[in-house]
Amino acid sequence: MTPRIVPVDPSFLPTGFRCCGIRCGIKISATARDLALFVSDQNACAAGTFTTNRVVAAPVVLCRERVPAPDIRAVLVNSGNANACTGPAGLEDAATMAHRTAVRLGCRPEQVLVCSTGVIGVRLPLDTVLRGIEQATKELGSTAEHWTNAAHAILTTDTTTKVAARSLEAGGKSCRILAIAKGAGMIAPRMATMLAFLFTDAVVDNPVWLAEVLRRTVDRTFNCLSVDGHTSTNDSVLLLANGASRCRPDAETLEQKLGEVCEELARAIAADGEGARHLVVIRVEGAASFEDARAIARAIADSPLVKTAVYGADPNWGRIISAAGYSGAPFDERTTSLWINDTLVYRNGQPAAFDRSELSKQMKAAREVVLRLTVGTGPAGCLFWSCDLTEEYVRFNASYTT
Amino acid sequence: MTPRIVPVDPSFLPTGFRCCGIRCGIKISATARDLALFVSDQNACAAGTFTTNRVVAAPVVLCRERVPAPDIRAVLVNSGNANACTGPAGLEDAATMAHRTAVRLGCRPEQVLVCSTGVIGVRLPLDTVLRGIEQATKELGSTAEHWTNAAHAILTTDTTTKVAARSLEAGGKSCRILAIAKGAGMIAPRMATMLAFLFTDAVVDNPVWLAEVLRRTVDRTFNCLSVDGHTSTNDSVLLLANGASRCRPDAETLEQKLGEVCEELARAIAADGEGARHLVVIRVEGAASFEDARAIARAIADSPLVKTAVYGADPNWGRIISAAGYSGAPFDERTTSLWINDTLVYRNGQPAAFDRSELSKQMKAAREVVLRLTVGTGPAGCLFWSCDLTEEYVRFNASYTT
Repeated sequence: MTPRIVPVDPSFLPTGFRCCGIRCGIKISATARDLALFVSDQNACAAGTFTTNRVVAAPVVLCRERVPAPDIRAVLVNSGNANACTGPAGLEDAATMAHRTAVRLGCRPEQVLVCSTGVIGVRLPLDTVLRGIEQATKELGSTAEHWTNAAHAILTTDTTTKVAARSLEAGGKSCRILAIAKGAGMIAPRMATMLAFLFTDAVVDNPVWLAEVLRRTVDRTFNCLSVDGHTSTNDSVLLLANGASRCRPDAETLEQKLGEVCEELARAIAADGEGARHLVVIRVEGAASFEDARAIARAIADSPLVKTAVYGADPNWGRIISAAGYSGAPFDERTTSLWINDTLVYRNGQPAAFDRSELSKQMKAAREVVLRLTVGTGPAGCLFWSCDLTEEYVRFNASYTT
Repeated sequence: MTPRIVPVDPSFLPTGFRCCGIRCGIKISATARDLALFVSDQNACAAGTFTTNRVVAAPVVLCRERVPAPDIRAVLVNSGNANACTGPAGLEDAATMAHRTAVRLGCRPEQVLVCSTGVIGVRLPLDTVLRGIEQATKELGSTAEHWTNAAHAILTTDTTTKVAARSLEAGGKSCRILAIAKGAGMIAPRMATMLAFLFTDAVVDNPVWLAEVLRRTVDRTFNCLSVDGHTSTNDSVLLLANGASRCRPDAETLEQKLGEVCEELARAIAADGEGARHLVVIRVEGAASFEDARAIARAIADSPLVKTAVYGADPNWGRIISAAGYSGAPFDERTTSLWINDTLVYRNGQPAAFDRSELSKQMKAAREVVLRLTVGTGPAGCLFWSCDLTEEYVRFNASYTT
């Protein structure tokens, strides 16, 4: 299936970056792009967050050693093969990819980051990839079309490219954040998630500070996202700030805008969940801590009974309340209430009267369902993104080899 | 759909118990049995384990207060309505059910245990249930047919009755254990599970000791079981020992036989998972502790990607290894190997060569798939039962209101 390619808006391109997205031949399809290269013309301050799965792909091992860093020059991404569970040979392949890219760009191998996504447990066709790197370094450019192709080249089972952008102003200058992501299945980030790349031409001097900002941002966005509860071996979020705009936004504004693009991408990944018919937005309020609120939201998000009820447009609040109940987070039924969209269905531990067929009709018509749960009078809450579970998810994953 | 009714073997009936399974009208179907009553003619030593969901059904609240106890006389079970999320009114309904049963049997209300299973969040039709109790107390009997009807009356979405039995001998006397269970969806016990009832005419004097034996047994059997990762509000396992046989088996033998019947029932529940085509048996070995082994097994069991791969007869070991990786249990990839059925697919952290299409053919033909994972050289292991995820599960749960 060919994904929907959304053209990148030319007014948000960060300066001082070049990129491309090409077909090098990892994927079988003759038209699928499968290699993206992003290059910063000057050293970029860079940070990353990565999967907490104990089994991690080779490129994750490589990236974890290299960021945060003040001098990253390139990110190479292949789709169609995850280079995971491939042992020492896989680690060598990842290092070779970085090395070859560095040679072609005239920088040190340590200045190149590598990401992979696709099938697990199969060696990369290294010669194919190395030929692809040669070609990619020749096709670099800075137009919107180059970014669009790069956003396309990182996809696997996604049905659409995923791009979010913001611009910021400070001291009479402007800078931009352009972020792209991929992800549709094997999505249940815990501390990091799927692949997302954030590029900004804002000036940032301290990579350790940048890493801290990224950690906080990811924790509230990509880490509040689940399609199927299965945490990947390859999850990586990378952020490069190259300073090419000479614009130095204040820390708070930069963090806010980064949060906005990450939230937009997290939402887009949930909405594009494999086989999904509904985006499910879960809002938990009144919890003692963010962690409690997220544990409750995650239990609801990952319950196949909740997911199939949403698919069936069934306002089956018993499944939602009972999922909250096994989340491990403390709460009292007697102060718990639940709204599906704007309809109160459960009030302070007891069923509320509502028009079931009307609410079901509304759920069926909408692309998005909002579950709002108040679990007490605590100060903390969480916004979480998920999707429904359909026969198409089952069919797809019974026949697709990840 | 009418479930398959397996007749109870008359040679395993524990003496001193009477029971029945009748239709009282909670379920809509005109032929479905929905009320079971089990009565011990003399005081029975009784123990129970219950769901760890924070949201618990009214009858669970009632039972938790009443066991362990040395003098239980009856267990009343209705299907078709869970009496969960029903607030204070639901608690009163459960108490009324126990009270009415006690009056009819001539015992104290505290000697009666109550269980419910079915739709969440709807008040029980109490008048219907009370009429059912009148009828049930009149239809009590001790033939195999009475037990068969009782095993039928506790079912909800199950496609078959679930019964396991053993006999024991000691001091020239014999006694029996007869156990029945229900469960097909909303199955992910953590400390207790679904409904299961164990009746024995063995002599047991100490209810606290019996509770400890039951806790250990459940932990290795029903707590190693998941259909869909959704822990129910109503999980209860009750064990009654009435001593009517005057046979006093040694503690170790009794515990072993209890373990055997519980394992048989746990396996039967997984095999009858909603929509399931395959029973999945997961054997984790070489872990540091039983808890680590179970965490790994549970992560594999609950991954929708593993479950759909089994459904698709796809020996997709990358999904299995990556699920183990996010289980939270420590292990080293380099000492991890995986067999699907008897085929080695992953050896010490690297792909093993195997005939994929042959293994797939074998998986497709069999009703049972065994995943054996060695994660090191530790002393502990775990056996866990699960099932695959099919389109039928999705269709069923998108239209059925639990």
